[in-house]
Amino acid sequence: MNVDDCVFCNIANHSISGDIVTENDELIVLKDILPKAPVHLLVLPKDHIPSVNDIKPGHEALMGRMILLAQQMAKQHGVADSGYKLIFNVGKEGGQMVKHMHLHLLGGKQLAE
Amino acid sequence: MNVDDCVFCNIANHSISGDIVTENDELIVLKDILPKAPVHLLVLPKDHIPSVNDIKPGHEALMGRMILLAQQMAKQHGVADSGYKLIFNVGKEGGQMVKHMHLHLLGGKQLAE
Repeated sequence: MNVDDCVFCNIANHSISGDIVTENDELIVLKDILPKAPVHLLVLPKDHIPSVNDIKPGHEALMGRMILLAQQMAKQHGVADSGYKLIFNVGKEGGQMVKHMHLHLLGGKQLAE
Repeated sequence: MNVDDCVFCNIANHSISGDIVTENDELIVLKDILPKAPVHLLVLPKDHIPSVNDIKPGHEALMGRMILLAQQMAKQHGVADSGYKLIFNVGKEGGQMVKHMHLHLLGGKQLAE
């Protein structure tokens, strides 16, 4: 896929609008447009990394910052104490819908074990 | 919980046996004892960090190495191309069963979107 056609790249560079919760130079947080829980956010790098399969040595700190930002979002959205899931879907059988790596934060209801 | 009572700490320090797939100085990979998919592994730090809620600035690279190791396990177990999920369950509503942070790798069948 051409990066120009990537919906998350286009939201990240503000070419198209998205429901942006917060952003910094490196990462952006969006509300999922088809929420599966009362809190359903996506944390993603602005750079186009297609999936977890594409991360390489050197990406460790970026991945860690994604998780720390998701944790911060869980606190800000009131689900840190009740509990939440952080999920990377990878590829077809993993249920990945957009080929730009993103971390789902789900919370606000009892989720499966 | 006393760390001495933590099942994952005790597997990590080899006090009790576990189905260990691989380990290094920092991380260990176990087979889940109640697998929910043909491939169901757990990647965890040997140090006792209770959950994602407890990670702090300074843990970024550790978290990234957990994800990179999970990606490597997906490749070694033949699910990188078909797809997989990486999941952190956090707290009660997140479905966290053992209070020692662990990353689930699920693959080998079609998983939910």
